[in-house]
Amino acid sequence: MEQKAGNVTIRDVAKACGVSISTVSNVLNGKSNKVSDEIADKIRAEVTRMGYRPSSLARNLRATSTKTIGVLAEDLIEFSTPPIVEGIMKSCEEKGYNVVIENMRLFGRWQREWLADETLINKTLKEALPKMEALNLEGLIYVGSHEHLVHNLFSGRGLPIVMAYAVAVDKQYPTFRLDDITGGYDVIKYLVSKGHRKIGVLAGEYDNTHTINRVLGIQKAMLEEKILFDPELVIYGSWFKNGGYAGMKALLGKDITAVFCMSDLIASGAYAALYENGIVPGRDISVIGYDNQEISSGLTPELTTMALPLPEIGFQAAKAIINLIEKPGSASTDMADARIPSVLIERNSVRSI
Amino acid sequence: MEQKAGNVTIRDVAKACGVSISTVSNVLNGKSNKVSDEIADKIRAEVTRMGYRPSSLARNLRATSTKTIGVLAEDLIEFSTPPIVEGIMKSCEEKGYNVVIENMRLFGRWQREWLADETLINKTLKEALPKMEALNLEGLIYVGSHEHLVHNLFSGRGLPIVMAYAVAVDKQYPTFRLDDITGGYDVIKYLVSKGHRKIGVLAGEYDNTHTINRVLGIQKAMLEEKILFDPELVIYGSWFKNGGYAGMKALLGKDITAVFCMSDLIASGAYAALYENGIVPGRDISVIGYDNQEISSGLTPELTTMALPLPEIGFQAAKAIINLIEKPGSASTDMADARIPSVLIERNSVRSI
Repeated sequence: MEQKAGNVTIRDVAKACGVSISTVSNVLNGKSNKVSDEIADKIRAEVTRMGYRPSSLARNLRATSTKTIGVLAEDLIEFSTPPIVEGIMKSCEEKGYNVVIENMRLFGRWQREWLADETLINKTLKEALPKMEALNLEGLIYVGSHEHLVHNLFSGRGLPIVMAYAVAVDKQYPTFRLDDITGGYDVIKYLVSKGHRKIGVLAGEYDNTHTINRVLGIQKAMLEEKILFDPELVIYGSWFKNGGYAGMKALLGKDITAVFCMSDLIASGAYAALYENGIVPGRDISVIGYDNQEISSGLTPELTTMALPLPEIGFQAAKAIINLIEKPGSASTDMADARIPSVLIERNSVRSI
Repeated sequence: MEQKAGNVTIRDVAKACGVSISTVSNVLNGKSNKVSDEIADKIRAEVTRMGYRPSSLARNLRATSTKTIGVLAEDLIEFSTPPIVEGIMKSCEEKGYNVVIENMRLFGRWQREWLADETLINKTLKEALPKMEALNLEGLIYVGSHEHLVHNLFSGRGLPIVMAYAVAVDKQYPTFRLDDITGGYDVIKYLVSKGHRKIGVLAGEYDNTHTINRVLGIQKAMLEEKILFDPELVIYGSWFKNGGYAGMKALLGKDITAVFCMSDLIASGAYAALYENGIVPGRDISVIGYDNQEISSGLTPELTTMALPLPEIGFQAAKAIINLIEKPGSASTDMADARIPSVLIERNSVRSI
């Protein structure tokens, strides 16, 4: 028989784990330094499994009303993170909340290795979370470096949590992320409005959430426009310049009039391959990017691209965490999975044909 | 008669300000919420004037050994800040120190207005510092968004402080910044080594520290190479693309073979002006940038540039603050004004003639 959240007490959790009530309490309070990692993990897993909600603890924390929110960022060095943090802090300032930032430095510590090895992110989190909990936070916003799945990382912790630009697999938390399906859809609709029907795609890594969802949007728009989707015109690669360079060379001679690059860096590589072959982007072929990084207006011709709504993701995530703190369990929006659209920035790299 | 630091007691400060000892103590401990801004400012000014050092306070703070360092950043959104923070955190991790980050959001709050109006930075600091002091820090690193002068902002506070990428006017603090003189010098020496002697310069704003020092380095190198310095070939403007675009147009027809752009964004504007006039950068004219931002390798041809030593600035600043904490008043390096050189990154935009 499944136990209901309301019926489970801390005593039940302690019994199930074969530990004392104070041990469970210590772990839930972030004072787990005297408890072995193994026991602490077991307690957190049991708390999640049994659906125990340490409501009195949460109430006590709220009663102190520190008006402080923690931002746990995977890496501040990633270009997308500072604008999200800016959005969070702007929202918090309006509502009179302080923000404390913890930088996990996943790229700094593990370069790109952590992307393929979740033990590294778990290891880093295990150090970072107790430090943050010691700061007497009222809520926590997790800021991903891109939109990837995070597995059960916070299980059993008593703090309101919101995900920004990352997705928790167990879906307990309100989530704010890109609307990549609409992004891919909007790009194709725009190119079609300019007369293009033979469109190449320089995509990111094929198993990346952003890539997958944007391709879904591309297919949806092409279906509407009665354009046959040709998988040979979609080149998967890296998100960086080298991916765009190699991908564009693979598309040369395929008779396309426009190319959708899934990042501005990919577009910069496409430009290089085009110039190398005497083809002028924006004149001989239309190019559209994604991200609206600084590079997009630096390129010649200036790149038409999709602006990521990063400050907006942060702003809405902060509004949600404050809502969770001030009106716990109230609105259904607390458990939102909000997808926020990107915005087209027209410059000089797409022409009508 | 000037009073010596060692002789001044907290009683003297209180007497000079006409307040109680506990009021002075509260202000120095960051518990100034019960004291008016006016009185708090008066106390801090008097502490600085009289040279009072709250050493017993500092000892007490150190005795608790929170092993926590605060990073006070002018704005995380500025491209230079995250790499400096990364360098700080890397160094702190090696030495077992935690880092707490406070983001002042100067650009977020005031756009570029604060650059010309120091009351805005002071106002923001007045809110940020007490919040940080409440975190029981052992030291503070101030991270500038660029190298500018900061006036007496920390006067009278009892915490060890180090400046990174910003300069305190009163020079009480160890400072780590760019070696811009050597940067300008190295660029000219490099261009001369490639055969260039008619060199244009697209500079940043004329009254900016980086601009002024790089021009000094340019003049030093030109003197050594017996090249007449022609002020008409130096165009001052903004640090952004539009500055480079307008500046490059002004240099067209001046018979130069190379142009030194003081930022990669300036170089992107120079590229645009050159392409517009049928001149191919890297072939018809050599271009060198500064900063090594992502855009530099995104441009076609890839831009030869100077990499800012931002992680190194952060790393050394952190080493200095830990030294100040663990061995107060010991080494003369504690009061260093370290200038850290940029590193040439050779790509394809400079050719030998």
